[in-house]
Amino acid sequence: MDITLVEVAPRDGLQNESHPVTTADKIELIRRSVAAGLRRVEAVSFVNAARVPQMADAEAVLAGVPRDGEISYAGLVFNERGLDRALAAGVDEINVVVVATDTFSRRNQGCDTAEGIARWERLAARAAASGLWRTVTIAAAFGCPFEGEVAPAHVLDLIERVAAAGPDEIALADTIGVGTPDRVRRLVTGLIERAPDALPRCHFHNTRNTGYANAIAALDSGVRVLDASIGGIGGCPFAPAATGNIATEDLLYTLDRMGVDTGVDLGAVIDTAAWLGEVLESPVPALLGRAGRFPAAAVS
Amino acid sequence: MDITLVEVAPRDGLQNESHPVTTADKIELIRRSVAAGLRRVEAVSFVNAARVPQMADAEAVLAGVPRDGEISYAGLVFNERGLDRALAAGVDEINVVVVATDTFSRRNQGCDTAEGIARWERLAARAAASGLWRTVTIAAAFGCPFEGEVAPAHVLDLIERVAAAGPDEIALADTIGVGTPDRVRRLVTGLIERAPDALPRCHFHNTRNTGYANAIAALDSGVRVLDASIGGIGGCPFAPAATGNIATEDLLYTLDRMGVDTGVDLGAVIDTAAWLGEVLESPVPALLGRAGRFPAAAVS
Repeated sequence: MDITLVEVAPRDGLQNESHPVTTADKIELIRRSVAAGLRRVEAVSFVNAARVPQMADAEAVLAGVPRDGEISYAGLVFNERGLDRALAAGVDEINVVVVATDTFSRRNQGCDTAEGIARWERLAARAAASGLWRTVTIAAAFGCPFEGEVAPAHVLDLIERVAAAGPDEIALADTIGVGTPDRVRRLVTGLIERAPDALPRCHFHNTRNTGYANAIAALDSGVRVLDASIGGIGGCPFAPAATGNIATEDLLYTLDRMGVDTGVDLGAVIDTAAWLGEVLESPVPALLGRAGRFPAAAVS
Repeated sequence: MDITLVEVAPRDGLQNESHPVTTADKIELIRRSVAAGLRRVEAVSFVNAARVPQMADAEAVLAGVPRDGEISYAGLVFNERGLDRALAAGVDEINVVVVATDTFSRRNQGCDTAEGIARWERLAARAAASGLWRTVTIAAAFGCPFEGEVAPAHVLDLIERVAAAGPDEIALADTIGVGTPDRVRRLVTGLIERAPDALPRCHFHNTRNTGYANAIAALDSGVRVLDASIGGIGGCPFAPAATGNIATEDLLYTLDRMGVDTGVDLGAVIDTAAWLGEVLESPVPALLGRAGRFPAAAVS
C-alpha cells in the first residue's frame, strides 16, 4: 500500500502558532520537508494579512522553496483575490475550505456554508482553467465548536454539492479533533460512494487522542492521502482549545512499521521536528522525538 | 458492544510515578475509580518492597478500598510469597506477568522466560485452588527495549504455553508502546484462535502515539477487555523512555462516541484525573482534561 502524506506544518501548523517565524525559517521548514521525501506541501495561505499576519509573506515563502518539478505546493485560497495571488505565486494546487456549519463558517470565512460552496464553485472553475490541482476541504466535518454535533447525512450532502464542481480531491477535516474511528469509516465510505471521481483525503487533529486511530480508520476505508504536521504543531485559532495536527513523524512511525510505503525518511522528519521546536522555542507535541525510534532506540 | 475497562492507574500508573503518594491517596484514587463506574481495578503489586517501594503498602491499600461485591480487585503477583500476600489481602484476581524476551524477563523478574512460565504454572494452580480469577499477561509482546523486535510467531507460541495452565484471561501487553494496529490484529486473532478458553485482554501504552489506534484495532479483532489508566499516568521503570498508559478518559471519550457501553462516567473520570494531577503535582498526560468534552465543550 502506498500513502501520500501532505505536509501541513508550514500552513496549518505555523498559522496557528503564536511564536513569530521568519520567512527564512518557513522556507527552511519546507526545504527540510522536501529533503525528507515529502512530495506534497501545504505551504501557505492567501488570506487577508490583517486577519492572519502569520501568512502575510506567502509570496516570499513560495519564491524561496525548492522547485524540482516533483514537488507540489498548495496554497489555501478563500476568494478571488486569493486565487489571483496564488496564480501569480506559482502554486501547483489550491485548497478551498467549505465549513460544514453556518456558525463556524461565518466566524472563519465571513459567510454561511451555502455561500462558501458558491465561492468554491467560482474558484474551482477559474483554477481548472489555469490547470491547478483543486482540493476542496470540508471543515468541521466531525463536529463544530459552536454548533456541536454535525450530522453525517449533512456532511454527505455537502460532499455531493462540492463534488458537482469537479474537484480533483475532497478532504474531510476534523478541524477541532472530535472525530472517532466509526464516524471516519462512515464518512469516508460515503465520500468514496458519492464522489467517485475525486481523490479522498483526510485531515485529523489529535486534540482528544483520537487522531491516529482516525488516520488508521481512514486507511482501512480506502483513503490514500493523509495530512500531517511535522512535530504535530498547529491547531485552529477560531476553535477554542483545539490544538495539534497529527504529527508527521508519529504517523510515519506507525505506517513504516505497518509496511505502508510513503517515500518519507523518518529520521529526517524527527530531526526537522527537533529543529522546529528550537525555532518555536517550545518542544513540539509529537511523541516520537521524546520516546525514540524503535527498534533503533533499543539499548543493550 | 460492551467493553470492560480495567483501571490500572493505582498499580501500573502509580508504580511508575516518582512522586510519592500516600496510602490514603491511593485508596482515594480507587474509591473515585469505583465511584466512576469502573468495576475491575488493578489495585496493587505484591512485590519486594525494597525493589518497588511505591507498592510497599499493598495490604494497607486493599484494606481500605470499598467492597460492595461488584468490584473485582487485582494484584500483580510474581512468586509464591506474593501469592500468599495476595490471598491474605483478599484480592479477587491475580495477574502474573510472563515477559516475552529473556533479557527483559531477567531484568524485570530475575529469571528467563521459560522460568517465568514455570512460575506462572505454579501460581495458576494454587490460585485456582483458592478460587481467584487468574490473568496471565505476556509483557513486551509487541517489542522489547533490550532485544528489539519480538516475532509474532514467538508470542503465539508463548500464548499456547501459558494457556496450558488454564488461565481465565490472557493479556497482551505493549509494555514499551511500540506496537501498531496491524500487529495488534495479528496477535489478537492468534490469541483467540490458540487460547479459545481464555478471555482476551490488551494493555497498551501511548509512548509513540499508537496506543489508541491499537485499542481500536483490538476491539475490531474481538477484544472486550482493555486496560487504561486515569490521566494516562505510568510507564515502565525498566524500559527507558517508556511513558504513559493509554488514558481512561481519552479512551472512554472515543468509546462513548462510538456507542460502546462501558458503564463508566466520563465526567467523573475527568474530575478524578484532575485530582490525580494535583496529588502528583504535575498535570496528567491525558488530553481530554485540557481539550474538554465534546459536544459539552461547545461554546456559543
